[in-house]
Amino acid sequence: MKDFIIMGCVIDSLSPQKLRSVEKGCIVVSQGLCRGVFREIPSGFEALPVTDFGEKLIIPGMCDLHLHAPQFALRGLGMDMELLDWLNTYIFPEEAKLQDPDYAKRSYGGFAEALRRSPTTRALVFATIHPQATTLLMELLEATGLICFVGKVNMDRNCPEYLREQSPEASLRATEQWLLETRERFSRTKPILTPRFIPSCSDALLQGLGELQRKYHVPVQSHLSENYGEIAWVRELSPAAAFYADAYDRFGLLGGDYNCVMAHCVHSGEEELERLRQRGVYIAHSPESNMNLASGVAPVSRYLDLGLRVGLATDVAAGSHLSMLRAISHAIQVSKLRWRLLDPSVPPLSFPQAFWLATLGSGSFFGRVGAFREGWEFDALVLDDSNLFHPQPLDPLSRLERAVYLGDDGNIVAKYVNAERLF
Amino acid sequence: MKDFIIMGCVIDSLSPQKLRSVEKGCIVVSQGLCRGVFREIPSGFEALPVTDFGEKLIIPGMCDLHLHAPQFALRGLGMDMELLDWLNTYIFPEEAKLQDPDYAKRSYGGFAEALRRSPTTRALVFATIHPQATTLLMELLEATGLICFVGKVNMDRNCPEYLREQSPEASLRATEQWLLETRERFSRTKPILTPRFIPSCSDALLQGLGELQRKYHVPVQSHLSENYGEIAWVRELSPAAAFYADAYDRFGLLGGDYNCVMAHCVHSGEEELERLRQRGVYIAHSPESNMNLASGVAPVSRYLDLGLRVGLATDVAAGSHLSMLRAISHAIQVSKLRWRLLDPSVPPLSFPQAFWLATLGSGSFFGRVGAFREGWEFDALVLDDSNLFHPQPLDPLSRLERAVYLGDDGNIVAKYVNAERLF
Repeated sequence: MKDFIIMGCVIDSLSPQKLRSVEKGCIVVSQGLCRGVFREIPSGFEALPVTDFGEKLIIPGMCDLHLHAPQFALRGLGMDMELLDWLNTYIFPEEAKLQDPDYAKRSYGGFAEALRRSPTTRALVFATIHPQATTLLMELLEATGLICFVGKVNMDRNCPEYLREQSPEASLRATEQWLLETRERFSRTKPILTPRFIPSCSDALLQGLGELQRKYHVPVQSHLSENYGEIAWVRELSPAAAFYADAYDRFGLLGGDYNCVMAHCVHSGEEELERLRQRGVYIAHSPESNMNLASGVAPVSRYLDLGLRVGLATDVAAGSHLSMLRAISHAIQVSKLRWRLLDPSVPPLSFPQAFWLATLGSGSFFGRVGAFREGWEFDALVLDDSNLFHPQPLDPLSRLERAVYLGDDGNIVAKYVNAERLF
Repeated sequence: MKDFIIMGCVIDSLSPQKLRSVEKGCIVVSQGLCRGVFREIPSGFEALPVTDFGEKLIIPGMCDLHLHAPQFALRGLGMDMELLDWLNTYIFPEEAKLQDPDYAKRSYGGFAEALRRSPTTRALVFATIHPQATTLLMELLEATGLICFVGKVNMDRNCPEYLREQSPEASLRATEQWLLETRERFSRTKPILTPRFIPSCSDALLQGLGELQRKYHVPVQSHLSENYGEIAWVRELSPAAAFYADAYDRFGLLGGDYNCVMAHCVHSGEEELERLRQRGVYIAHSPESNMNLASGVAPVSRYLDLGLRVGLATDVAAGSHLSMLRAISHAIQVSKLRWRLLDPSVPPLSFPQAFWLATLGSGSFFGRVGAFREGWEFDALVLDDSNLFHPQPLDPLSRLERAVYLGDDGNIVAKYVNAERLF
């Protein structure tokens, strides 16, 4: 079993408002689970092997609730359009390339290695419509040691012929076969149903996906209320739906008794929010994406007050960066501009809130994940911040804030996922 | 003399709208000046030594129009307040430490080395009220090879006793002595008059600084219309001024026949903008700072249309990052949120516009700087983007966009300032 102790300057969230720090803290892991943070090794655990990281920071791993593996190659490119034009101009042609096994190996190989080195320990990942490439992506991610849900995307309308599944039946057949092949195959990598978004999915397809969900009990991920043009289009396409989220819900694709993540929810109205709350849907807040595509800014602190489930996401490649550390600072920054430019009634996110979103907020999708608590799963990053020059010693929380704003993958010197050390 | 040729994938701006790229291009530098970009070595220059950077990108150096050296230690910290509270809580106590020569050596030493390694080739730098530490900063910057204007800050009111000059006369005396000591002393580093902002400077002090400007013909830098609380306070403090900029102008501190930079101009009204245009004042647009302090977003593309001079700035430490590459992407991102959240009549900045702001827009403050043109000064960065994974070859402009969004100091493998290679 996985039994060990690591020592260092430990920081995690007690609540969305409050961080805890323990200098020279000990985290005990036994039988693969966290036993808590201690000021010294507690009795009964003296025999466990100890890794002492000294002054280095030890924080929970980051959970990325939404990103697109095939778009990784496009990050930092083509940031000059809104969502729908951007999909047609840049994204769909790129996603079509994943049909080629050689290209898929190169593209997904680069993605998996970058995700392994990033602050992310667990992620929800969109692939493409291609089952073979999606399975390859799952194999590559399984090999990294990360814990991921991966979705073969469904698209049967309103997209280019070259990236369209030929019928609802063909899409469902391919999806079910892929589910059967992958749902038991990996220990860390699991399939998730992934209708791209309402505009790309016919009612017949959504109906069938709802049935697959109920048959196989898999979670669901999709997009919701990201962009004004998209929302208007959904209103046209789904006149029977009361609002955008209802267009998923009427097919049983909006959570409830299973986990469901909807990316963005930038422009969700009150009825939609209430439905998301009732269904326990996770909102994947994607701040850099929402800037880059000029989508807007979700009122995240209000969502937290309403009791909605909210986590953080990079949304690569509408978000340029795979780093959840950057997503934390972006979440704070966009919330300040929303407060200043649009609506002073919704306060900006604080640093502890944004850190909580990236760890506990997102982590709860995966279970008891996102903090160093008794009986919880153990994901951790060890950060060496010694290259972030400062003329004086700093307290732990200041060091963390600097590591988030100024650090990058190079600052991560060790990474643990579910009590296994990846590097 | 400085005579050489460098070869690589050359990119610079033809206009704010248009980038030029020349793969396997040659930049000829002779007698210390750029002679242009060529597809092969032009006749007459065959004997010059050639450095061939192969596939690497060669772009103009970045000019940072506004940053605070003493705040470098605080970057990424204390991002939870607006301007005036932030100054009192975090910044003034930190700036006071620069009085201690040992602390100044550590803090400014770290700053100078980081600036040397950054994409910045020229900068306008605020120091503190302390003449000795300011001169030390100038010595350290001179040694880097960068070209900088450095300002001893003036503050004689509305600031803590520990960071206040004791009278207008004392402030002016110290400033004039510092000017006399430093204006001829360095080849690359020059003094610039630096009243912090109207709230910190009495009328008598501003009057005297105007006289020093006319006596020594030095440029001027300060802050303008950054934050609503600040603007309201200036209205109280300077009831005779028609608007904030007029509070500088009535003392001859707003440019006209000399170079003047005003940081921010987020909330400038029409009269103020017209005055800035008349006086040829440079606006230092500081997008990350304006996010972090929730100040707002300047309508930069409108300023360009109005014929205002605008450049780009990091504004460390209200901006967390010293990298002008990040400032470029931040400028684009905040302009998109301004367009979406506040005012769809002002279009977002394009990538070529934001790149132009960081090179030519800021560079013109320093003369013929910011592009590879015949007879212009030669500042360049050589970027190795080979660590920015992509599964396929990319065209030069796509490579540049990725290097800006995804690169960091580690991608800079050579840096030239005024035809001298720094590393």
